[in-house]
Amino acid sequence: MPEFFSVVTSAAAWRILESHLQPVTGTEILKTSETASRITAESIQSPENLPAFPRSTMDGYALRASDTYGASEGFPAYLKVRGEVLMGCSSSLTVQRGEAVKIHTGGMLPNGADAVAMIENVQIVDASAIEVVRPTAPGENVLKIGDDIKKEELLLDKGHKIRSQDIGALMGLGITRLKVYRQPRISVISTGDEIISPELQPQPGQIRDINTYSISALIEKSGGRPIPLGIIPDDLTKLQMLLRTGLEQTDMVIISAGSSVSTRDMTYKAVESAGQPGVLVHGIAVRPGKPTIIGAANGKIIIGLPGNPVSTMVTFHLLARPAIYKLGGCLKVPAQPEVSARLTHNIPSTTGREDYVPVKLEIADGTLTATPIFGESNLITTLTKADGLAIVPLDLHGLKAGETVRVRMWE
Amino acid sequence: MPEFFSVVTSAAAWRILESHLQPVTGTEILKTSETASRITAESIQSPENLPAFPRSTMDGYALRASDTYGASEGFPAYLKVRGEVLMGCSSSLTVQRGEAVKIHTGGMLPNGADAVAMIENVQIVDASAIEVVRPTAPGENVLKIGDDIKKEELLLDKGHKIRSQDIGALMGLGITRLKVYRQPRISVISTGDEIISPELQPQPGQIRDINTYSISALIEKSGGRPIPLGIIPDDLTKLQMLLRTGLEQTDMVIISAGSSVSTRDMTYKAVESAGQPGVLVHGIAVRPGKPTIIGAANGKIIIGLPGNPVSTMVTFHLLARPAIYKLGGCLKVPAQPEVSARLTHNIPSTTGREDYVPVKLEIADGTLTATPIFGESNLITTLTKADGLAIVPLDLHGLKAGETVRVRMWE
Repeated sequence: MPEFFSVVTSAAAWRILESHLQPVTGTEILKTSETASRITAESIQSPENLPAFPRSTMDGYALRASDTYGASEGFPAYLKVRGEVLMGCSSSLTVQRGEAVKIHTGGMLPNGADAVAMIENVQIVDASAIEVVRPTAPGENVLKIGDDIKKEELLLDKGHKIRSQDIGALMGLGITRLKVYRQPRISVISTGDEIISPELQPQPGQIRDINTYSISALIEKSGGRPIPLGIIPDDLTKLQMLLRTGLEQTDMVIISAGSSVSTRDMTYKAVESAGQPGVLVHGIAVRPGKPTIIGAANGKIIIGLPGNPVSTMVTFHLLARPAIYKLGGCLKVPAQPEVSARLTHNIPSTTGREDYVPVKLEIADGTLTATPIFGESNLITTLTKADGLAIVPLDLHGLKAGETVRVRMWE
Repeated sequence: MPEFFSVVTSAAAWRILESHLQPVTGTEILKTSETASRITAESIQSPENLPAFPRSTMDGYALRASDTYGASEGFPAYLKVRGEVLMGCSSSLTVQRGEAVKIHTGGMLPNGADAVAMIENVQIVDASAIEVVRPTAPGENVLKIGDDIKKEELLLDKGHKIRSQDIGALMGLGITRLKVYRQPRISVISTGDEIISPELQPQPGQIRDINTYSISALIEKSGGRPIPLGIIPDDLTKLQMLLRTGLEQTDMVIISAGSSVSTRDMTYKAVESAGQPGVLVHGIAVRPGKPTIIGAANGKIIIGLPGNPVSTMVTFHLLARPAIYKLGGCLKVPAQPEVSARLTHNIPSTTGREDYVPVKLEIADGTLTATPIFGESNLITTLTKADGLAIVPLDLHGLKAGETVRVRMWE
């Protein structure tokens, strides 16, 4: 087996991965107030008109628009005030020709009225009469029935990631429970003879597990539920067994492979032997992150992320993040937040390879600047010091100091 | 009391609000793996060197660099192989002059060696001898003790929002428990005679509560814990009582005021009577969102958000979001994600006022375009249809079709 039989771009790797993805079908019904960031499992039509009655959008007087035609400061329209619409009630009053009824923002338009003159255009004569000094058009300052949303109109698509405003709108329509997809369960396996639990004191040659925890935190941010399966030594049989467990009991498996050639080979062999079609991608044109493996076995995705902590996180964002969203039924994977910044130092690269370089963001002379934190991809602290990662696209030979660079922000 | 005695910009309103903020001081100790998005309550120094031993960053051979000086394809350096460093162990071998030891990425450098020749620069002669075809410098392909982070070096500042990579680094250093600030508890009060619980069927003139739920979801996204105190009618005494409860038992109070002048007046009076100094800001130069009230009483902030659901969310993001972050001890409020897009239609505005217009984002001819969704600020569905909000800055008279506009994305 060659080390990297065919390195592909991250975009090509994603297309291959996506073509083997089978989104979860299971659903659950939750209180709508607890569905933030979950994915709708059905399209939602409005069960009713909102508003269900014509509402005033202003403080003023409900009236017949035709009574105010031609009104001006010099020739105001004189109207008798028949009373007041109380908030939250339907009024028993009917506005006749030459009459008006006091109304507040959000109040229900009384029968007979077809518009509201805003208070600023009204002069109060006495308790029972007003003068309107500007003409009012029919429907002016009135929200008609269904103006916000009509009965049976589409509110949210299926496969939509629920935002705060969606929760507000659903509650406003009385949709207090909602069917969402269950969260995909993602196995996390760390491999390496030298890796130990963070609870233990490392002996010489040993190092604590980082990747299980950074990956698990990222899975949660992507809408999945991390299922850490533990740390296993460099033992193909053990990896095969644990991989089988992960494939049987969860929806996807992420292996944080050791960084040495031998452990990467082990991951390759385990994925290849896990089922059909086996390894799909072996190596991506990304730095850091080249030794990434994508496979599929019996309808489930396996991703072998490189072991260096920076590489792990870069490739997670490129491949595992969208995979988990899609697996969870989300049709449009949310874009990762980015900012543009002026680069303070050259970043070398090679055409045909994407580079991700941790940067520190600062405001200098009113401009956002990005200063690269150069360091090996095995240094986790390059990421704790960084505010984001500068992207050198596939088709560039590098970026020069002074150029504008896109910086991806991680949560 | 005048309607708006002095409208200020949102930036000025924020400065006033911030000057009255008293961050929470309470802390709690959590498992590090459960601290995503929480705020560190102390600065974290590394308890040890990482790595704690010199590690190879390549697969290859540990050796003395001086043995390879002048080596080339034509005149390789011939070295005896003394064995192999096993992963996760310290080696009992000592590399003498003219010797090498096989090593894997992440392996511990054996005594006597000061560099690693990568496998690509080595020709294997037989099981006990190699030829190195390029010179190796001292320290080459070796991570020295503390190269990632040194003992007592700062890892994370106090007041830092914890990201996935921070969790990875903390675990890698054996910091499995972490002191974070407790989450600020934020009361949410909805007011209005016409507002009913979403569980109920509205009668004519009634409308279901939207804002309690959109605000609560936003509080959670900002790191706070929403404490909904319920819906109260337009009754000053009741509002005063509930406001007092909120101020006594939680860290901040958000009132979603009714939209009519009378209910806004009620909120003003309640804030003014809640304690010292009372109302600080009454009206901001933002559309939608003008009728916003900021107050403080006995060291706690009160924000009166306008009742229209779009206004509520716009002003929440401008003022309540950063307030909750700061209240929770976060020193650097995370920027809201933004994209730049080409506007498809004119957006009118007025100098001296910020405008936020819901927009739909689409890719047209390879360019991201923003199409305004014009509609009253009382239509919640303008936000469910929108991908983000286009910003018309304070100093512009509006934006023209074809111009580039910043679009703020909400979660």
